[in-house]
Amino acid sequence: MRILGIDCGSARTGYGVIESDGVAHQLLAAGVITTDTKKPFEERLLTIGRGLREVILGCAPEEAAVEEVFHAVNVQTALKLAHVRGVALFAVAEAGLPLGEYSALEVKTSVVGYGRAEKRQVQLMTCSLLRLDRPVESEDAADALAVAICHANRSALKRRLEVAR
Amino acid sequence: MRILGIDCGSARTGYGVIESDGVAHQLLAAGVITTDTKKPFEERLLTIGRGLREVILGCAPEEAAVEEVFHAVNVQTALKLAHVRGVALFAVAEAGLPLGEYSALEVKTSVVGYGRAEKRQVQLMTCSLLRLDRPVESEDAADALAVAICHANRSALKRRLEVAR
Repeated sequence: MRILGIDCGSARTGYGVIESDGVAHQLLAAGVITTDTKKPFEERLLTIGRGLREVILGCAPEEAAVEEVFHAVNVQTALKLAHVRGVALFAVAEAGLPLGEYSALEVKTSVVGYGRAEKRQVQLMTCSLLRLDRPVESEDAADALAVAICHANRSALKRRLEVAR
Repeated sequence: MRILGIDCGSARTGYGVIESDGVAHQLLAAGVITTDTKKPFEERLLTIGRGLREVILGCAPEEAAVEEVFHAVNVQTALKLAHVRGVALFAVAEAGLPLGEYSALEVKTSVVGYGRAEKRQVQLMTCSLLRLDRPVESEDAADALAVAICHANRSALKRRLEVAR
């Protein structure tokens, strides 16, 4: 199963695509869509939406995963992030990809085994689970990969439970 | 100048297109994009984005206007609305339309002449300003038309001020 994970942000939106059988995960692509903070917000949303569309076209994921809405730092930040998330969900739905949504707690528990893990630990475990020589450079891309891995694990668990029934 | 006004909502997104010279306004189109509340949120965002895209293709507006983010009823509602607004801004930016953003206070002041006007008053004044025989049926479409009229008035004022300089 090929999975796209997205880590939404108005300045930097991370993405990561993995191939996974639910046990082993392989990195296919990871990166960050950056936007010019001096540009009008709607143009930045356009950059993010088009960027995600390109990633989807280029990597052909079969499913997608994003984090749920957030323990917001403050309301204005949360509202901005929700705009970006709207554009991301639109891009995913436009491509017809089934979507998984997970809380930050679920992602960290799934990847690090501990819901209150720090960003650095997530980055290192993502690196380890994907058997990379070194962590992906961007924290945002690592977060996106973590969401994708979480989705892979959860989907595999779900399939195993269905078989066991 | 042909202007698209949008009134964002996850269940009902109103739109209205007017032709305006800054003094007289003429109704070209108005309606509501409704979404199935039982469907996943991302599919509803897709319906809204595609709906707005169709309106833009069909009516060929030159500019667009939306309300700013809101004196939110509650945080969850505001976050949902911000997702929809993100998709609307994306559709507007994708079509290359310049965007105007106005507070509810500005819209009401521009259309009714009173910032605390009630929904019904906005609906009646919109009807009157567009010289319609009766108010447009949907409140959401009327709100969208009000935003478009506000943008028309503001743009005309701006042009007059520039000429006067």
